[in-house]
Amino acid sequence: MSTHSAGPEIERLIALLAKLPGLGPRSARRAALHLLKKRDALMSPLAEALADAADKITACSTCGNMDVTDPCAICAAPGRDPSVICVVETVGDIWALERAAAFKGRYHVLGGVLSPLDGVRPDDLNIGGLLERAGNPVVKEIVLALNATVDGQTTAHYLSDRLEGLSVDITSLARGVPVGGELDYLDDGTLTAAFKSRRPA
Amino acid sequence: MSTHSAGPEIERLIALLAKLPGLGPRSARRAALHLLKKRDALMSPLAEALADAADKITACSTCGNMDVTDPCAICAAPGRDPSVICVVETVGDIWALERAAAFKGRYHVLGGVLSPLDGVRPDDLNIGGLLERAGNPVVKEIVLALNATVDGQTTAHYLSDRLEGLSVDITSLARGVPVGGELDYLDDGTLTAAFKSRRPA
Repeated sequence: MSTHSAGPEIERLIALLAKLPGLGPRSARRAALHLLKKRDALMSPLAEALADAADKITACSTCGNMDVTDPCAICAAPGRDPSVICVVETVGDIWALERAAAFKGRYHVLGGVLSPLDGVRPDDLNIGGLLERAGNPVVKEIVLALNATVDGQTTAHYLSDRLEGLSVDITSLARGVPVGGELDYLDDGTLTAAFKSRRPA
Repeated sequence: MSTHSAGPEIERLIALLAKLPGLGPRSARRAALHLLKKRDALMSPLAEALADAADKITACSTCGNMDVTDPCAICAAPGRDPSVICVVETVGDIWALERAAAFKGRYHVLGGVLSPLDGVRPDDLNIGGLLERAGNPVVKEIVLALNATVDGQTTAHYLSDRLEGLSVDITSLARGVPVGGELDYLDDGTLTAAFKSRRPA
């Protein structure tokens, strides 16, 4: 915006809010207005939560998860199975799997997927750390829980090749009809995969 | 969320972000992840901008605008016409009009519109302050720039009645085809208003 209609402090706040995914310039203004209205209930607490998180949270040097401790709470938890490592693209994927309580082993965050178009090469991902962890005799299985996208699957193939020499099982998530999914709305690839992996009812 | 999958610091941040208009629980998580990735470029500056704004910005005691000074920059600007007061619902409307550089007078923020359903009565809006300002002999015109909604127009009628005794012109924004608007996509009310107010080409 060329005009500082709302004063430089508010303009700066709007410009920063507009950088959040899901917020554009218009919704950032709306969010700023909402924050100004709810100064004590929302604006100050959010400022503190952001400063607190920026100050305390670090990447786990073992798995790449974000937490206030290093190793992170998941890597440090004695109750979690150290023999299975679930490889994910981002920390957000850990959050999704933890919300579902779908997995009780350890994680490894790649930090992205291989993408020739975006210039992401193997050295840009945390693959060295994964190979090192996979070489530990405690580890029996590596679950490749990458997104079912072209880049995600390319990366999964690449990781399978790199892990081949080690004595670990390499698995990936099942493909099929999502829970609550209606056949009529599913893409052909999912239907084909669901048919191929069909099982006794 | 029942599980503290992401640690209490991050969960708190996500919960606060989810209170912003335009962000739900899912997009708040995405925003939190983005912030954690861009800690120095975005997270810390946003924390500072929020704390700074929460600390400094106050409502102008004259017009209700939000600014770091009281009276606000618009009320204090010597170059702006003190004889015209533009009445708006919210501070966001001031921002919109200032962005358009549509008006060079002063503003008055009502803080909402009358709404029997939502329990908003005249005493809940800054109407007393408007009547006081409109009584100043310097003021010649009051522009009612309220939203073209039912509640906005009800409020405009109510304000017209309240301002009637004073020696000020009461005007409202023109209705018609918006710039770039295609007739085929406009509602009947707008088309009718545009026809009624037609003028020589």
